[in-house]
Amino acid sequence: MKLADFGNTTVALYDTTTDKLIKKDVKSFDPSFFHETTYYISVNQQISKKLQSFSNWINLEAYIDRAKYYETMGIDRIMACEAIENGVIVDAGSAITVDVMRDGEFEGGFIYPGIKAMQTCYKNISPVLDYAFNFSVTTLAKSSADAISYGYLIPFVKEVQSYNLPIVLTGGDATKLQTLFGDHVRVDEKLIFSGMYKILDKKVDKLQLKK
Amino acid sequence: MKLADFGNTTVALYDTTTDKLIKKDVKSFDPSFFHETTYYISVNQQISKKLQSFSNWINLEAYIDRAKYYETMGIDRIMACEAIENGVIVDAGSAITVDVMRDGEFEGGFIYPGIKAMQTCYKNISPVLDYAFNFSVTTLAKSSADAISYGYLIPFVKEVQSYNLPIVLTGGDATKLQTLFGDHVRVDEKLIFSGMYKILDKKVDKLQLKK
Repeated sequence: MKLADFGNTTVALYDTTTDKLIKKDVKSFDPSFFHETTYYISVNQQISKKLQSFSNWINLEAYIDRAKYYETMGIDRIMACEAIENGVIVDAGSAITVDVMRDGEFEGGFIYPGIKAMQTCYKNISPVLDYAFNFSVTTLAKSSADAISYGYLIPFVKEVQSYNLPIVLTGGDATKLQTLFGDHVRVDEKLIFSGMYKILDKKVDKLQLKK
Repeated sequence: MKLADFGNTTVALYDTTTDKLIKKDVKSFDPSFFHETTYYISVNQQISKKLQSFSNWINLEAYIDRAKYYETMGIDRIMACEAIENGVIVDAGSAITVDVMRDGEFEGGFIYPGIKAMQTCYKNISPVLDYAFNFSVTTLAKSSADAISYGYLIPFVKEVQSYNLPIVLTGGDATKLQTLFGDHVRVDEKLIFSGMYKILDKKVDKLQLKK
């Protein structure tokens, strides 16, 4: 089965049969090139509009019970939540979204700045705070580089750990954050696709799935 | 006694006798206008240089044991620490500096973005995150405005509370953060001056103080 996740700049395409995941630029992406049935989600309104005219591109958003979540919550975040019964999902991209699932129910979440955005934030406050983060910081800081690293990372990590649930990291910066969480973490770059597959498995007509 | 704290844009002037605190623009500040002995600290190199030529302006930095702290730590942060034997000092300005003092010893600290800087940070990630913070947020969020408010504020507040020490808020945004910490917090806009006074009381020749 072919699955696709359209972001604002990148589309991730996943083939469940071959377990192959590829990423492409959304701007130059041509859906007419694909003839197989492909299930997709999209936070990119421009491409969503384009895809409506292709009968083999099927938007999975229609199969989601949005009432479980909240109105402005991105479909990518929702799909990642659908993949997990019990856990904290940390999706580290330009923003870091954190969502808590308990017994299949969405408890709520929060949004934290991504690594690049936060580094720019400190730099904009003052050039004396223009440092790369130290991802090995653990104790209260006695240098400027460690002071911003601790401030950015440690309260956030403690918050994520405080739910006492399995932690699943996904998104482009997942591996950068991994060591901060110690052993109680799993990196899953295909989490969104797991959610999509689960939804399809539950909701879509079985015949349609065999296409 | 007259005390002064020079920042990059503002100078705070404090008269210990009248308990009056005034703030002035650094740019248009003329030290030759003041004839009394005034003890000052400064993170503003330009004004520091200027003040050296006035014998009645005395830089208190010389009286500080910098070895207790770290090299690039601002003298204003150090002076606030000197005011406290046991406590967490949260100085909320363009950046929020957090410093932990235990039995008069500096344990370390961290630096977190200030309210305005963090709001800009979220806005720069995406226009859909351009919200004012909700300072009443307490639980995991189910709206975008609460999601960024929780992300910015709650892990930070929990971190500050985790030291189990009295919390002292200072700086321009102190009162905005106050309610988040509940009852276990004190706002002290003259904290830096308390530190300066304490240093003077300990270190400066008593005759000089009577000037």
